[in-house]
Amino acid sequence: MNVVLGRRTRPCRTVTFDPRRNAVILIEQRLLPHRFEFVATRDFRETAAAIRDMIVRGAPAIAATAAYGLAQGARDFHGRGLTAFQRHIERVYARLKDARPTAVDPVNAMNAVRSAMRPGTTIAERQSLALAAAERFANEDVEHCREIGRHGEPLIRDGMSILTHCNAGWLACVDFGTATAPLYAAQARGRRFHVFCGETRPRSQGATLTAWELAQQGISHEVIADNAAGHLMQRGEIDLVIVGSDRTLGRTGEVANKIGTYTRAVLAARHDIPFYVAIPLSTIDWNLKAGSDIPIEERHESEVLGAWGALQNRKSQIANLNSRYVRVANPSSRARNPGFDVTPPGLVTGIITPLGIFKPRDLWRERMRLGWGGGPR
Amino acid sequence: MNVVLGRRTRPCRTVTFDPRRNAVILIEQRLLPHRFEFVATRDFRETAAAIRDMIVRGAPAIAATAAYGLAQGARDFHGRGLTAFQRHIERVYARLKDARPTAVDPVNAMNAVRSAMRPGTTIAERQSLALAAAERFANEDVEHCREIGRHGEPLIRDGMSILTHCNAGWLACVDFGTATAPLYAAQARGRRFHVFCGETRPRSQGATLTAWELAQQGISHEVIADNAAGHLMQRGEIDLVIVGSDRTLGRTGEVANKIGTYTRAVLAARHDIPFYVAIPLSTIDWNLKAGSDIPIEERHESEVLGAWGALQNRKSQIANLNSRYVRVANPSSRARNPGFDVTPPGLVTGIITPLGIFKPRDLWRERMRLGWGGGPR
Repeated sequence: MNVVLGRRTRPCRTVTFDPRRNAVILIEQRLLPHRFEFVATRDFRETAAAIRDMIVRGAPAIAATAAYGLAQGARDFHGRGLTAFQRHIERVYARLKDARPTAVDPVNAMNAVRSAMRPGTTIAERQSLALAAAERFANEDVEHCREIGRHGEPLIRDGMSILTHCNAGWLACVDFGTATAPLYAAQARGRRFHVFCGETRPRSQGATLTAWELAQQGISHEVIADNAAGHLMQRGEIDLVIVGSDRTLGRTGEVANKIGTYTRAVLAARHDIPFYVAIPLSTIDWNLKAGSDIPIEERHESEVLGAWGALQNRKSQIANLNSRYVRVANPSSRARNPGFDVTPPGLVTGIITPLGIFKPRDLWRERMRLGWGGGPR
Repeated sequence: MNVVLGRRTRPCRTVTFDPRRNAVILIEQRLLPHRFEFVATRDFRETAAAIRDMIVRGAPAIAATAAYGLAQGARDFHGRGLTAFQRHIERVYARLKDARPTAVDPVNAMNAVRSAMRPGTTIAERQSLALAAAERFANEDVEHCREIGRHGEPLIRDGMSILTHCNAGWLACVDFGTATAPLYAAQARGRRFHVFCGETRPRSQGATLTAWELAQQGISHEVIADNAAGHLMQRGEIDLVIVGSDRTLGRTGEVANKIGTYTRAVLAARHDIPFYVAIPLSTIDWNLKAGSDIPIEERHESEVLGAWGALQNRKSQIANLNSRYVRVANPSSRARNPGFDVTPPGLVTGIITPLGIFKPRDLWRERMRLGWGGGPR
């Protein structure tokens, strides 16, 4: 999508590769929204560190970074012989995998790159197959998001107000994003609408990242406290909700996503507001039998007990662009911090995928088409 | 209730009066939860400033402060003659009223003090009647909260987890609080329970003030992001919700309270969790005919776009106890910030008042008993 640099707007992807420097180019997301910078990782170790340290975040973006990282590592082999080369590849693979050990997407992405290398009969051939596979992986991600946008865009009509939650935007993917793709596609068709970015405490990705994205794109938007969504729905100020999902159960249609998603879905159902979930096919879990089986990560309590932001001076100007942590809560109190929640299928109007919009309970029936047991991501 | 000062726990009221110094003694609430200090206002002008500058907050606490402020002003008259004295009283009254022009409770409180003075035939007599009336007003507030506690306490059983929202605690009253009174009463009976303090963005009164109160009182509690309430209800971890109310409509049973209350009520209803609202009778509005007529204050967007907290150093120690503002949201984005929402009576299990627990729709039938058209606050 776009970034505004000075007075110029220029197109930008979250993750790209510079073959000349053999570097992965990433947006340094930890500085957003207060500062926009690129980071170039010069070898696979730096790429792994960028994943570990959350310079890049969002499953699809991390997956593309890992794919590029594996190709980068392959191209950085200075030994001799295919056997030594493959041993090197396994080391690179392990290093990148360990950077975010619980994530499944980077492993799938690297498996695709590793398989694509295999037909190569020389090191140079394998190196160039690896890079081509990584590029293909990234481009496919862009294509899937574009398709989500194409299918979701008709839901957005002129004059609508749309509520989002967290960031399922292009910053979390290679481009376009998932929940944001229909917005960008509708904008490209000249439609005008307004977006409420739910703040998404405790990490405030809606206020920081989604609001930043929409601002770059020139889309009318306002941040709201998570508490305000119900009131705005009650007053008829929200026409549509679109969120992303970390994991959608193919068997039941249950949707696991950032904490607070379930609450938005309950509110939307009460007010007869359509509630859509936009996902790449890779996030459909065909194995788990019940949403209650999804492990809900309990994150560090400091997230709830405080906030990160830029210090401002007395004139409300940002005095220091680096984010600082402030302790908000009572110093002697502790917190609970579940990171995700599970929304039952009955509250979800439709799942927007690259292949079309489906009722959550129809996913299982459509499983062959949707790539059950491998196939398209 | 209690405050912990060093190693000692001592009883404390939010608002008291020191007749020897002719000073209103207030907790400096703007420093909480990071620092606990009293402020003594030396004349009615300082008292008005304390109300205006939100050193004291919460309608009942402000009302008691205004009542004491009027008595303080009366005792600070150094002229001659009852006529001049009454002119002075009107000036004091106006000054205190103007400190929070939209609030109705301080006006009612000062009217009570002014009426009580009238029978006095000398200045000295009126001065002492004024102070007695202010003390009576404050003590009645304590008594009403104690009665809320007495009626609400049986709802809290051993081992329960209770969700609160915002701060309707003793810091907002003279003592005991409204939504917190049943908790303190249950604790006094030896019952053990756990409280989830909903953070209550954007001003985070749950994380700061309610968590501080419960910590002083030694009540087991944890702060949660507002987004987490739905998930915890879904997992069966919340047994009861108690909140306060700024204004409850006697005719319809609709409840106006801090933004997010409606969302909690919708979630509680979905999960068959009892949802109670604890109020002093003075907050029942017998005139308004519909919740949609309640003006919803749109507060400053900076509340949503950032957060106040204490800076911490690298060792997670609080480096500076003064609260600092950090900008969290994207710098070029704006925010909507409705301060309150309205919960329909169908979502409210009961209204806990000093006179007992009522169904919201029964308030009108019980209006004579509940002090419609004046009577007990």
